[in-house]
Amino acid sequence: MALPVETFFLQPDAQGTLQSQIQQMIAQGILSGRFQPGEKLPSTRKLATHLGVSRITVTIAYTELLANDYLTSKGRSGYFVSENAPTPPSFSPTPDAEDAVDWARALGQRFSGGVTPSKPQDWSKYRYPFVYGQADQSLFDHANWRLCALQALGQRDFESMTSDYYDQDDPNLIEFIARHTLPRRGITAKPEQILITMGAQNALWMTAQVLLTQRRRAALEDPCYHALRDILIQSRCHVNPVRVDADGLPPEAIPPDTDVIFTTPSHQCPTNATMPLARRRALLERARQMDALIVEDDYEFETSFLRAPSPALKSLDTDGRVIYVGSFSKSLFPGLRLGYLVGSEPFIREARALRASVLRHPPGHTQRTAAYFLSLGHYDALVRRMGNALHDRRARMEEGIRAHGLQVAGQGAHGGSSFWMRAPDHIDTHALAARLRQRGVLIEPGQSFFGGAERPRNFYRLGYSSIPATRIADGLAELARGIAQTSGIGHIRA
Amino acid sequence: MALPVETFFLQPDAQGTLQSQIQQMIAQGILSGRFQPGEKLPSTRKLATHLGVSRITVTIAYTELLANDYLTSKGRSGYFVSENAPTPPSFSPTPDAEDAVDWARALGQRFSGGVTPSKPQDWSKYRYPFVYGQADQSLFDHANWRLCALQALGQRDFESMTSDYYDQDDPNLIEFIARHTLPRRGITAKPEQILITMGAQNALWMTAQVLLTQRRRAALEDPCYHALRDILIQSRCHVNPVRVDADGLPPEAIPPDTDVIFTTPSHQCPTNATMPLARRRALLERARQMDALIVEDDYEFETSFLRAPSPALKSLDTDGRVIYVGSFSKSLFPGLRLGYLVGSEPFIREARALRASVLRHPPGHTQRTAAYFLSLGHYDALVRRMGNALHDRRARMEEGIRAHGLQVAGQGAHGGSSFWMRAPDHIDTHALAARLRQRGVLIEPGQSFFGGAERPRNFYRLGYSSIPATRIADGLAELARGIAQTSGIGHIRA
Repeated sequence: MALPVETFFLQPDAQGTLQSQIQQMIAQGILSGRFQPGEKLPSTRKLATHLGVSRITVTIAYTELLANDYLTSKGRSGYFVSENAPTPPSFSPTPDAEDAVDWARALGQRFSGGVTPSKPQDWSKYRYPFVYGQADQSLFDHANWRLCALQALGQRDFESMTSDYYDQDDPNLIEFIARHTLPRRGITAKPEQILITMGAQNALWMTAQVLLTQRRRAALEDPCYHALRDILIQSRCHVNPVRVDADGLPPEAIPPDTDVIFTTPSHQCPTNATMPLARRRALLERARQMDALIVEDDYEFETSFLRAPSPALKSLDTDGRVIYVGSFSKSLFPGLRLGYLVGSEPFIREARALRASVLRHPPGHTQRTAAYFLSLGHYDALVRRMGNALHDRRARMEEGIRAHGLQVAGQGAHGGSSFWMRAPDHIDTHALAARLRQRGVLIEPGQSFFGGAERPRNFYRLGYSSIPATRIADGLAELARGIAQTSGIGHIRA
Repeated sequence: MALPVETFFLQPDAQGTLQSQIQQMIAQGILSGRFQPGEKLPSTRKLATHLGVSRITVTIAYTELLANDYLTSKGRSGYFVSENAPTPPSFSPTPDAEDAVDWARALGQRFSGGVTPSKPQDWSKYRYPFVYGQADQSLFDHANWRLCALQALGQRDFESMTSDYYDQDDPNLIEFIARHTLPRRGITAKPEQILITMGAQNALWMTAQVLLTQRRRAALEDPCYHALRDILIQSRCHVNPVRVDADGLPPEAIPPDTDVIFTTPSHQCPTNATMPLARRRALLERARQMDALIVEDDYEFETSFLRAPSPALKSLDTDGRVIYVGSFSKSLFPGLRLGYLVGSEPFIREARALRASVLRHPPGHTQRTAAYFLSLGHYDALVRRMGNALHDRRARMEEGIRAHGLQVAGQGAHGGSSFWMRAPDHIDTHALAARLRQRGVLIEPGQSFFGGAERPRNFYRLGYSSIPATRIADGLAELARGIAQTSGIGHIRA
């Protein structure tokens, strides 16, 4: 039986080349049982005409399917669905039924319902996306990333890419981090003191698992990265929020029975405060007195476009007391999911064993691609290019903020990619964000960064890593209008 | 100052193209401070002669470094280290000191020291690697994987690759699994019932976190996948090992107060037993009576080269009681770290929230590459090609096993990639494996698969997914010799 050419359609919104779309359409027809073994396909000429593509495109797709044994060709009589092609299952699938399981009872532990807010995934469709931590595709060096990925896909690297590393990492990436990345933060580390993670999130999560129990006490900055608060709450340790000031975490305010201190000294999240050197020493001394450990999240040190970043807290640590968290997700792109932990060997050994149990290791190909991108100098060039763009955007942000009388609550001394903002006291920035969104303006409400009983509602974060420079002025004008209108209507407190 | 050409060397064992090696060498010289801003590089002609490469190669490397601002060129006077090039840090790194931290006290939880054995990472260098679960590079469709990865690296897919998915997955991959992969196992699932994981290991780990607590009871097969036992021990639930027989897990032997049953019905790990249909129904009935959940690890169903695989246990589940674990790590390559969980929405919702906290999501590029590889039919072609090779190897394995009178304890009815073997009672296969390794033969000692007080020492696993067919006969001969010699010398029990 011949398959009628009319049953062949390309999806209007399909991705990939025409050739791969055709190949995919036929493979899926066979897999779903629509096309049966022995059935004859339309001739390449006929199908090409029907789909409005060139005949060679169809021929290549057919040839590919021949190689995969989906099709066979019988000389001049054409192409047929192969007898060896995969067949759809003969058994019929389970109908959609009501669960007989009482899930409220069956679930041993709950993980949903944390404080981490969900952000709009379609942020790039908004005109004024003052979002934080997303990649700006116009700045990323896509071409060279692609070349490095290709190199890592080559036959020579294939073994390292396909192997199960068990609990190990790509030695090339570890070596680059040890020899080039960490020295720039003033840190020396041996390969055994470094563990690759699935981004900073994963590094913080593993650290909490290894160091905390229900009986231990963690101090964390308030406000702080909300996902970190969720991680600590899930670990069931005692959590003590410590309010930060203009210099970051005040050491004297840390409760004396603390076991682990989580901090962002170079760039407090979200206030952007930089901890001065004297306070860093005081923090280390306080930790020493309490025999506490310090977890340093050194996120965003690469965005120091105003002046050189201060050395990491870890660089001052002679006790082995500081565990350092680094990330490439911010500076390369968040979908990469690549970061690292640096710490003493007894700690890294446990984190490595935990990682092996949870997921074995981050994918080999991703690690090798990053290793090439770093060692060929593309990473530094990217950081410099991003720095220039952020510098320009920051100047425009400052201009607009001044022009509209918006209030800055915190900004990075070295650079960064966001402003921590304070709206008039009576404004709930959650409601404000919802209204602004309808006008194409995305801001991040600040409440979820705070812990404790009193969580201010009038803070918000303005990121400038994803908004084009030319839209900043209009975006801030729109934001200022939104705040003014909120102040005008309704709310009695003022 | 001109940099003397003599200080430039290519590493003899370096990877990548010559051009990228040169680029890397210069970038690292600058990063490490060996080459200072303003210093003049050798001319392309001079460096090319010195390194023994073509001049164009050096020129391209220099041009690339110009673009990255590591070098500048001053017309005809040549190339210089750029004033904008990254500089090494001015602060000196911390010296290597003794830790002042008492790690025995500081570590809250231990994860190292589990039963999962460490396997030789250099297995491919051995002549007779009867290892299990590693990729055979000679069978993998490297060319098409590379093309799919390239397509996923294209501008059109770039957004999905670089974005932070938050807690979501690549919709293309989810759709393919729902429409094509699961129906072949008799399973219908909506996208909300599917979660992508970092391999089966990660799927099993998440399942244990969501379903188990210190107060809950898990039943698991004995012997079983050792990493699963480690996961359950770490979860601190009560673990009841249930001895399997020739048909897999016997439902009546499962303790009546069990909350979660972990099983491998289609292909028991490591004995390869296939659970008959009647027992599957009995297992579901037993779980229903106890109101227990079942976690089905459907690993290796793709290696059914002898006859079609039986439908998954999940396909018989009308209660929503079965949680299904699938993996692409085995059939594609283990370094990929890609698998999936299928279950009722309340379960998947918690697993998704847990995953977001632990690592957010598996990398976008990996997901999209797999989606292309699957939907273009390359995956099915690969499975068929692997099936043919495994079929041939299995025949040779059976021949050699018969010829040397080795005893098979379990083999797959549908195919598979290993034999579960029994050595004479007095033999400790751990010691045997160590001796055989010196003769180039790798086998997997069986003891670590067993739980409970009595762990037999005389079992072992022989994988044939990584050993070339032509070496099987000699490898088995060497193995038989090893066993005979062990029997001859020493051990008194016989």
